Amino acid sequence: MADQYARPSQETESVDGRGGRPALPVIRWDESPEGPVVVLLDQTRLPSEEAELVCAEAPALVQAIRTLAVRGAPLLGIAGAYGVALAAARGFDVDEAADALADARPTAVNLARGARRAQAAYRAALAAGGNRDQANAACLAEARALHEQDAQSSARMALHGLSLLDELLPGDNHRILTHCNTGALVSGGEGTAFAVALAAHRGGRLRRLWVDETRPLLQGARLTAYEAARHGMPYKVLTDNAAGALLAAGEVDAVLIGADRIAADGAVANKVGSYPLAVLARYHHVPFIVVAPVTTVDLDTPDGAAIVVEQRAAREVTEIAVPRTLAGVEAGTVVPLAPVGSEAYNPAFDVTPPELVTAIVTEEGVASPPTVQSLAELCAKAQPVTLT
Amino acid sequence: MADQYARPSQETESVDGRGGRPALPVIRWDESPEGPVVVLLDQTRLPSEEAELVCAEAPALVQAIRTLAVRGAPLLGIAGAYGVALAAARGFDVDEAADALADARPTAVNLARGARRAQAAYRAALAAGGNRDQANAACLAEARALHEQDAQSSARMALHGLSLLDELLPGDNHRILTHCNTGALVSGGEGTAFAVALAAHRGGRLRRLWVDETRPLLQGARLTAYEAARHGMPYKVLTDNAAGALLAAGEVDAVLIGADRIAADGAVANKVGSYPLAVLARYHHVPFIVVAPVTTVDLDTPDGAAIVVEQRAAREVTEIAVPRTLAGVEAGTVVPLAPVGSEAYNPAFDVTPPELVTAIVTEEGVASPPTVQSLAELCAKAQPVTLT
Repeated sequence: MADQYARPSQETESVDGRGGRPALPVIRWDESPEGPVVVLLDQTRLPSEEAELVCAEAPALVQAIRTLAVRGAPLLGIAGAYGVALAAARGFDVDEAADALADARPTAVNLARGARRAQAAYRAALAAGGNRDQANAACLAEARALHEQDAQSSARMALHGLSLLDELLPGDNHRILTHCNTGALVSGGEGTAFAVALAAHRGGRLRRLWVDETRPLLQGARLTAYEAARHGMPYKVLTDNAAGALLAAGEVDAVLIGADRIAADGAVANKVGSYPLAVLARYHHVPFIVVAPVTTVDLDTPDGAAIVVEQRAAREVTEIAVPRTLAGVEAGTVVPLAPVGSEAYNPAFDVTPPELVTAIVTEEGVASPPTVQSLAELCAKAQPVTLT
Repeated sequence: MADQYARPSQETESVDGRGGRPALPVIRWDESPEGPVVVLLDQTRLPSEEAELVCAEAPALVQAIRTLAVRGAPLLGIAGAYGVALAAARGFDVDEAADALADARPTAVNLARGARRAQAAYRAALAAGGNRDQANAACLAEARALHEQDAQSSARMALHGLSLLDELLPGDNHRILTHCNTGALVSGGEGTAFAVALAAHRGGRLRRLWVDETRPLLQGARLTAYEAARHGMPYKVLTDNAAGALLAAGEVDAVLIGADRIAADGAVANKVGSYPLAVLARYHHVPFIVVAPVTTVDLDTPDGAAIVVEQRAAREVTEIAVPRTLAGVEAGTVVPLAPVGSEAYNPAFDVTPPELVTAIVTEEGVASPPTVQSLAELCAKAQPVTLT
């Protein structure tokens, strides 16, 4: 077993201005008496239990990534970088740790990118003539910088998004429908679409956050509702198929979602269930807004047709796992929802064509409507200028 | 406790022409050595277990109705009628039994109608000078007639529906998406929308039945998948929110659903999640077909706006009950899906406006497009002609 242990959350009991508790730190570096550790909020235990998972070496973090104790694209990048810094600080082989972390979830591009970035900082410090301590410090500084950049990126998306809402919507009493989990639990900051809703809440301009439960893995009911509750936001959960009745009843002013990947033409791949919301939003003349960092835009993917949709295991649909914290139920117990042997159609995400997207909000500004040109301009802003 | 007991299904092992088993009798009258009984397929145990529930007196049937061991509008009517016949045959007070059955689920109109119909037959036989035995026989005959009428009505809907599919769809290899449960488990026959898909299957013209899981109560994953599996139909389950990706991929030729109530103008109230399918079907130019008996058309409800949507308990969304048959888990254990105390928006059904409905198929024929006039004509056909 990797050197990893759980402990109850050590959160202080402060309360923010609107009746909520501040979000738990989802990931942090801690200098314990026994040496440095990476402390995670164990997402597999939410929403029933807020428990920290303390990782004292990189293999423990690899295990936490594999078990989904930590998840979400930007957050995985940060975890990968801290993992490499941890290996360095604990005196282990940095290259080996970076490889193990980068491979912990093969399809998570940000994870590998974060691990490699910390590894490169370590190597660069050594190459510049630094000693091990200086290289370790450079590696940790790079992880912290990635963490901080991601937090700032969230904050800027929230500002741009809130301005867009104020521009598009009459009044200042927004009712926002969201899908999946796009908050602090996937980010170094407060997330993407959720961060916009949270900014509206803090500004006294959120009347209701409608939280799609987001089958099959229920990230909305489990995680978004958890974050909304902690912040004291006025939220209600709904089954994904109830969004139609809600829109028909005139109860939604805007739909806000995140994105897994955005093609060069503005087609948006995101958690399955996003596309039906886009069609419904259009039918009801409600803005459909995508919030994502510029790194989500993949200029090498020309359009939605070029995005391959991953099919996931049938059992995600046909069974439901009982959370390990449920009294009297053994960990790993599954509840069958369909007859044994039923096959399932279970795409991980769907693709929304650009003509259904009102706007794409990034940390660099808003593409509205999203086009090849408006997206390319945002991407260009994010590139550091290179003087030749 | 009412006089009610469970026993394993006594089904014979015959196999139909396409690799499936015949549907279990969902409800039947049985003359046991100890006297007459009503035998139900216990729907609360599906799909894990096929168990019969034997009711030897009316209060046992009332209890079975309350616990949802038997459910579905037309089937409840039949159960109510058999329940009154059972009280009569067992020598109990028929009026008292009819009252208890009619009130077992207050909003189930068919239940009361079925119970009252059998009660009226009993009274009429007595009024015509018959003795108790003759009145009992009249009562049972009325229940059997209702059962038979419903089965015939299913069969006629299936024929009309299949003709419509052949007319609307190119080729004879249909891929049908359905929602909720509309098969033998809600009917004296083979159901409504499901019966059309089954007829297509028997005719070798069903390539795929796509089964929406139908949150929150999962009647699709649990019951429709069960019925499809028993009939050997080629089916796959999907989360409700995956229907968009499926339609976008061109994998659906028609959407077929049932109805809880149809307004005079053709607006259709049905299980929540139906309306988003109608919007998606329109967006993708796929026929959206409603299959329901003429009794579902309520000419006193002018349009969709006049239909009051029932809101149901939040816990249906925020928790999931563990089926009693799951090994090692106590009956009644619930798995929380959202933070404790989360509120939910949980409408029982939604309303699809007539302009999104391609056709309404009834046992009397097809209204396509559904209009005040086309529906009124179908309803008129169903009325027995009264000579004055």
